[in-house]
Amino acid sequence: MKSAILFGGASYEHEISIVSAIALKKVLKGALTFIFLDADGNFYLIPSDSMKSNHFSSGDYKNDERLTLVRGGFEKRGLLKSRRLEHGTLLNLIHGAEGEDGTIAALLDFFKIPYIGPRKEASVLSFNKWLTKLYAEGIGVRTVDYQLLRIGDAREPIFGYPIIVKPLRLGSSIGVSIVRKAEELDFALDVAFEFDDEVLIEPFIEGIEEYNVAGCKAGEEWILSRIEAPQKKEYLDFDQKYLDFARTESVQTANIDATLESDLKETFKKVYGSLFEGALIRCDFFVASGEILLNEINPIPGSMANYLFEDFSGTLAQLENHLPRKRPIVPDYAYINKVQSAKGPKLGSDR
Amino acid sequence: MKSAILFGGASYEHEISIVSAIALKKVLKGALTFIFLDADGNFYLIPSDSMKSNHFSSGDYKNDERLTLVRGGFEKRGLLKSRRLEHGTLLNLIHGAEGEDGTIAALLDFFKIPYIGPRKEASVLSFNKWLTKLYAEGIGVRTVDYQLLRIGDAREPIFGYPIIVKPLRLGSSIGVSIVRKAEELDFALDVAFEFDDEVLIEPFIEGIEEYNVAGCKAGEEWILSRIEAPQKKEYLDFDQKYLDFARTESVQTANIDATLESDLKETFKKVYGSLFEGALIRCDFFVASGEILLNEINPIPGSMANYLFEDFSGTLAQLENHLPRKRPIVPDYAYINKVQSAKGPKLGSDR
Repeated sequence: MKSAILFGGASYEHEISIVSAIALKKVLKGALTFIFLDADGNFYLIPSDSMKSNHFSSGDYKNDERLTLVRGGFEKRGLLKSRRLEHGTLLNLIHGAEGEDGTIAALLDFFKIPYIGPRKEASVLSFNKWLTKLYAEGIGVRTVDYQLLRIGDAREPIFGYPIIVKPLRLGSSIGVSIVRKAEELDFALDVAFEFDDEVLIEPFIEGIEEYNVAGCKAGEEWILSRIEAPQKKEYLDFDQKYLDFARTESVQTANIDATLESDLKETFKKVYGSLFEGALIRCDFFVASGEILLNEINPIPGSMANYLFEDFSGTLAQLENHLPRKRPIVPDYAYINKVQSAKGPKLGSDR
Repeated sequence: MKSAILFGGASYEHEISIVSAIALKKVLKGALTFIFLDADGNFYLIPSDSMKSNHFSSGDYKNDERLTLVRGGFEKRGLLKSRRLEHGTLLNLIHGAEGEDGTIAALLDFFKIPYIGPRKEASVLSFNKWLTKLYAEGIGVRTVDYQLLRIGDAREPIFGYPIIVKPLRLGSSIGVSIVRKAEELDFALDVAFEFDDEVLIEPFIEGIEEYNVAGCKAGEEWILSRIEAPQKKEYLDFDQKYLDFARTESVQTANIDATLESDLKETFKKVYGSLFEGALIRCDFFVASGEILLNEINPIPGSMANYLFEDFSGTLAQLENHLPRKRPIVPDYAYINKVQSAKGPKLGSDR
């Protein structure tokens, strides 16, 4: 498999995207090209042996070759002529803003570059936690109850404490707090509003069971990962999640009964639907009183959840062979020609 | 007001975008730059006196100056040096795919070009008619009952005839049919599935009252248009809507009582919310048994619904002064530096 990893981006998760890309370098077989998008919107071709985190934090990457986005791919621009970069399918590994909010999807669609990753609609619906809830409701999947608060709204939670406060549009637990009593609320909201004008409040359910499943649909075939019961902690803070993005070692399958396993997998498929075609996603579920609740959808999971798959390289290769195609639209100017020839009273005036 | 109109695009509504741009040339005061995006993804600078529909249908536009999208705007590329095009705020006037589906929004966001038009989330939620319904439900606005059908699903409407069949993601009535009896269903679905893999079925309500309102929020100020009761027809077919996009003459305010007028305007504001900030949109409402239903949101209405406003140029100028700003994100590499200095067991291995 010849493919390229696109990472970086102007996002709070810029750094974990770098860490994620380094992790994938370790686990992916085949020829890999590394394309870094810096926070200023410039693309760089990173030599494989420079794929170390301090290459980026030091700014050394700026000495690497610049790439220009063109129709169908990237070009290395020379003084006299430009050469096309041969990179195969692109893997969108930009976590958080730009990568997961639909910007990169739209950019790659517009420039007709084939890619693995969520499309625009899928990005928007998973990046905004409120929209994820509306989507889940629309497909008959339950989520935790919530309250939406805009900056400036009265700070009155409708749930009893403890509650969890989350910026609406960030991943990786950034700006997320558990609030155990009223006195802690203002600080938690101030933190969350640092990142977004909208905040989601949910009741915090102590000791809830958590299960993660990753997977994709390659044509008609489902490839689902093993189910992980992530390490129990109050919640993952950013440092913890950060290390999580570096994961390359396989995990144990959760010790659950066949019914729950099958229910989790069916719920995953329902969420994935046709919306996430072209992407390998991870769904994080809660199980409360025997009922499955969707907690969040990671359309570009940390290190692509490689550690959950038996054959990660094979899974990506299969997905790559089944990327969604857009219907080509070629305007034939039929209407303009018709109106031109009829010299209609309204359009005639534009001649 | 110095601004640029971006029109064209790879969409079934490519032609009506041209017609829309020609209409705006007539009604907008101030210096205007015309930037045409052809169906192959190339940008052209169109001289003002070439803004005639046959300039595009004939392919003559290809002799105009090519533009390249760069950070902050467009460049005219010369053999020896490139010159920046001074164009002011861009008005996204690309109807349908690309313009209204979030592609152009993402592109302009990525290249940091200020624009009037729906942002990514707003685009995705209004372009996909199912998502519009989920959004409306989420904000407490009613819509017509519906059934979602995917290509390959059993063709069994849950409503009695007549019903209306719509491709999920197209505007301007393309692919839309009213089905009055079972024998007509297959053909209508075949037509709709020509355009999208998903189709929406709604009961068709004869003689329902229709009202259109356009507007925007400029800072804290709402600018709402007069309310129009569009000409009663079974439904607007594409030819009809096409002429609609060329509209430049003011319309009469609908003859409705003060309560309904105020209710329609309040519903418009609820729909616009914070989601559509930066855009001038038109909402099409139904009123059935005294209840307001949202029919559709046009985040880039034909000829920008100029004919509904008292002072259209002034409205756009005000909106231009209140475009939403993105929070700048500058990665400080704090985590990488921390991990580098700690030489953590997992990340150390990437050195």
